[in-house]
Amino acid sequence: MERSKLVELIRSKRSFLCIGLDSDPDKIPAVLRDTEDPVFEFNRAIIDSTHDLAVAYKPNLAFYECVGSKGWESLTKTIRYLNDRYADQVFTIADAKRGDIGNTSKQYARAFFDPSSSGMAFDAVTVAPYMGEDSVKPFLSFADKWIIVLALTSNPGADDFQFFRSTDRRLFEEVLTRSKAWGSENNTMFVVGATRPEMLREIRSIVPRHFLLVPGVGAQGGSLSEVAANGLTDDCGLIVNSSRNIIFASSGPDFAEAARAGARIMQQEMESILSSRGI
Amino acid sequence: MERSKLVELIRSKRSFLCIGLDSDPDKIPAVLRDTEDPVFEFNRAIIDSTHDLAVAYKPNLAFYECVGSKGWESLTKTIRYLNDRYADQVFTIADAKRGDIGNTSKQYARAFFDPSSSGMAFDAVTVAPYMGEDSVKPFLSFADKWIIVLALTSNPGADDFQFFRSTDRRLFEEVLTRSKAWGSENNTMFVVGATRPEMLREIRSIVPRHFLLVPGVGAQGGSLSEVAANGLTDDCGLIVNSSRNIIFASSGPDFAEAARAGARIMQQEMESILSSRGI
Repeated sequence: MERSKLVELIRSKRSFLCIGLDSDPDKIPAVLRDTEDPVFEFNRAIIDSTHDLAVAYKPNLAFYECVGSKGWESLTKTIRYLNDRYADQVFTIADAKRGDIGNTSKQYARAFFDPSSSGMAFDAVTVAPYMGEDSVKPFLSFADKWIIVLALTSNPGADDFQFFRSTDRRLFEEVLTRSKAWGSENNTMFVVGATRPEMLREIRSIVPRHFLLVPGVGAQGGSLSEVAANGLTDDCGLIVNSSRNIIFASSGPDFAEAARAGARIMQQEMESILSSRGI
Repeated sequence: MERSKLVELIRSKRSFLCIGLDSDPDKIPAVLRDTEDPVFEFNRAIIDSTHDLAVAYKPNLAFYECVGSKGWESLTKTIRYLNDRYADQVFTIADAKRGDIGNTSKQYARAFFDPSSSGMAFDAVTVAPYMGEDSVKPFLSFADKWIIVLALTSNPGADDFQFFRSTDRRLFEEVLTRSKAWGSENNTMFVVGATRPEMLREIRSIVPRHFLLVPGVGAQGGSLSEVAANGLTDDCGLIVNSSRNIIFASSGPDFAEAARAGARIMQQEMESILSSRGI
């Protein structure tokens, strides 16, 4: 998906919400447990119930791989459903945090971007930067596909290495500075956790126009208004993710309605932010 | 697998060879292409032909995921075959380079270590350190399972961030220093590329007894004798990986014999190294 199309979705839906499909098989509502593929049925119901409120969906691979190849089948059905039913209406992110030597990353790129090989076509994949340029570049050889590079993550462990500092900068700043040169604002985003909104201004001084994917609002404690105040650009430039708070808002038969209600609250807050900034 | 058992395998097989099952579906020999699962049949033939020469097998996930869920099926069959046919005779490594926030890494750990959930039981998984301690710890809660932390990788991109330096150390040294404290020599290894053998002495000053998984001998240009000279401990402490040079030594019907011949050359060199060091 092109950047202009993504911005158009944000403007028309009045939302920059990404719903994280962290669809833990152990937490699927009882009402779906006897279906053939409970995880896919769950995702489908969540998507159908929220597609007008969210601009993006982001399955995290861990929650599929934990049950092995049948999890990958649920994932494949989910992305196919999104592509068939909601083509050009949502941005899709494989939250896989992959990265390997060039020759090998090329295979990961096929997994997420080449449906003739893997059966799956996401718009974007999250990548881990530790192995450097040749581990990331193969993902950028696909037209209109995006990488989302881990920069400053939302978890406690972010302190261990991401703040490791040279005389003039910290590792996450080095990651932003170097990796922004590998692609462009039209195919590269960065993960920046909502749990450190005070860092967003500094990050914006390095990447003023890149889209940021922001996890950590809600369950992890981040605040949407602080994120927006420090990170918004003139065409939004933010995708804010919420997972558990939305998809597991209810474990009863009303789970899809409860997810919609949760997404609606976030979308309304986002609409008010966008309007106040003239977007 | 316990460390003592791994060392016993090295001593009895006179080898510290790991064979990388980077079984690119596009490179499977023609003779297998009409079988039901060419990748699995290829792996089985390679394993049967080399199991007495190698102490470890390491499928790289990218080469399975590139064809989607059916790739995960081939992978599942491969690890099951190793566990059923060669139980306690080989060490198995999922080269997945995973890592995510704690809650999510727990699911990745289930994928590779908990057969009741995913159908797969590897001895070890490679992990990416960027997200820090809570991204790695969940893997260590499984008894007799190992993490193999990326420290200094074999690819050109290693220069981008791994050598990023503070006043007194480089990032890969910080990774070694911090992450060795998360586990012990009995459940933690580190990836150190053979393409930088001169760094091995410095690395040994930080982790004198940990096992190192060393890729990059062969196709990537690293030298086994230099790696051994700088990295060997009194109980070996090295697992040296070779992938393409062994498994794709021939694309003809003799592929398994050719793989054995390639593995045999490495094993003989390793035997001579081990004997000269009294191991």
